[in-house]
Amino acid sequence: MSTTTKEEQFLSEAISLATHNVYNDGGPFGALIVTADGRRFEGVNRVTANNDPTAHAEVMAIRNACSQLGTFDLTGCTLYTSCEPCPLCLSAALWARVAGVVYAADRHDAEKAGFDDAVFYNFFNTPVEERSMPVRHQPLSAAAQTTGSAPFDAWDSVAARVDY
Amino acid sequence: MSTTTKEEQFLSEAISLATHNVYNDGGPFGALIVTADGRRFEGVNRVTANNDPTAHAEVMAIRNACSQLGTFDLTGCTLYTSCEPCPLCLSAALWARVAGVVYAADRHDAEKAGFDDAVFYNFFNTPVEERSMPVRHQPLSAAAQTTGSAPFDAWDSVAARVDY
Repeated sequence: MSTTTKEEQFLSEAISLATHNVYNDGGPFGALIVTADGRRFEGVNRVTANNDPTAHAEVMAIRNACSQLGTFDLTGCTLYTSCEPCPLCLSAALWARVAGVVYAADRHDAEKAGFDDAVFYNFFNTPVEERSMPVRHQPLSAAAQTTGSAPFDAWDSVAARVDY
Repeated sequence: MSTTTKEEQFLSEAISLATHNVYNDGGPFGALIVTADGRRFEGVNRVTANNDPTAHAEVMAIRNACSQLGTFDLTGCTLYTSCEPCPLCLSAALWARVAGVVYAADRHDAEKAGFDDAVFYNFFNTPVEERSMPVRHQPLSAAAQTTGSAPFDAWDSVAARVDY
């Protein structure tokens, strides 16, 4: 059988976007958001091109889809990506509420190419005191006359808020 | 002693941004990137306002700082945020290479206010087969005539690439 599945076609498309992006000042990553009814929204890595460390392919595809569909919720959509989403992109997919993610290369392929996807996955499982980047809870003293709860108190008080 | 530390002042500023943002159609989160020489770049949550599920306060502060400083690398900067960064924002901080993160409220405060920060942290430690959102590796068949390695091969071949 020499036919490809629909899924392979989407992955091939993401891979093709990734490869072309390398020759257009971008990183070697491409992604597609596909809606339940088959509409496609592309994204490619523009971290160095746009001076935006969050401009990963999957994030760009999610932003693109949301912008064009006029929503912050991609329930029912699938994210196809040339490479396993890093923790940033996995989190973006979670917040966007996509139905699932399908990827071709994995974090170890990315690592071999010099990217920190695997390192950052490990960061999540590293004890706080051993982390390369400290992330510290700093409760405010009385002198500050505010607390971290203040924004949530405001949020609770606004009946017209848009939850997400 | 009724004085506040510099750190408390930055956190208070992030909290103030967060609270004001609630009354401007945004989520209850605010953040600041502070450079080693004290320049400040703000960010507030615009997820629902901008139809961008990645427009978290910390991400917005990082994008803002990078855009204005003309770089994708915030080495030496500190991220101050009204609430513990969610996995998206923690990852963005890692990719941006900030020196550290300091926060006021934590993921449990966010959870009480209805946000999924803690849920998504747990997602990272949930076995693949039990996850609410499937993330699946799909190697391509020979019929696809490409593989996930193709973009990395292209990347390796480009001498003028910009690593990050």
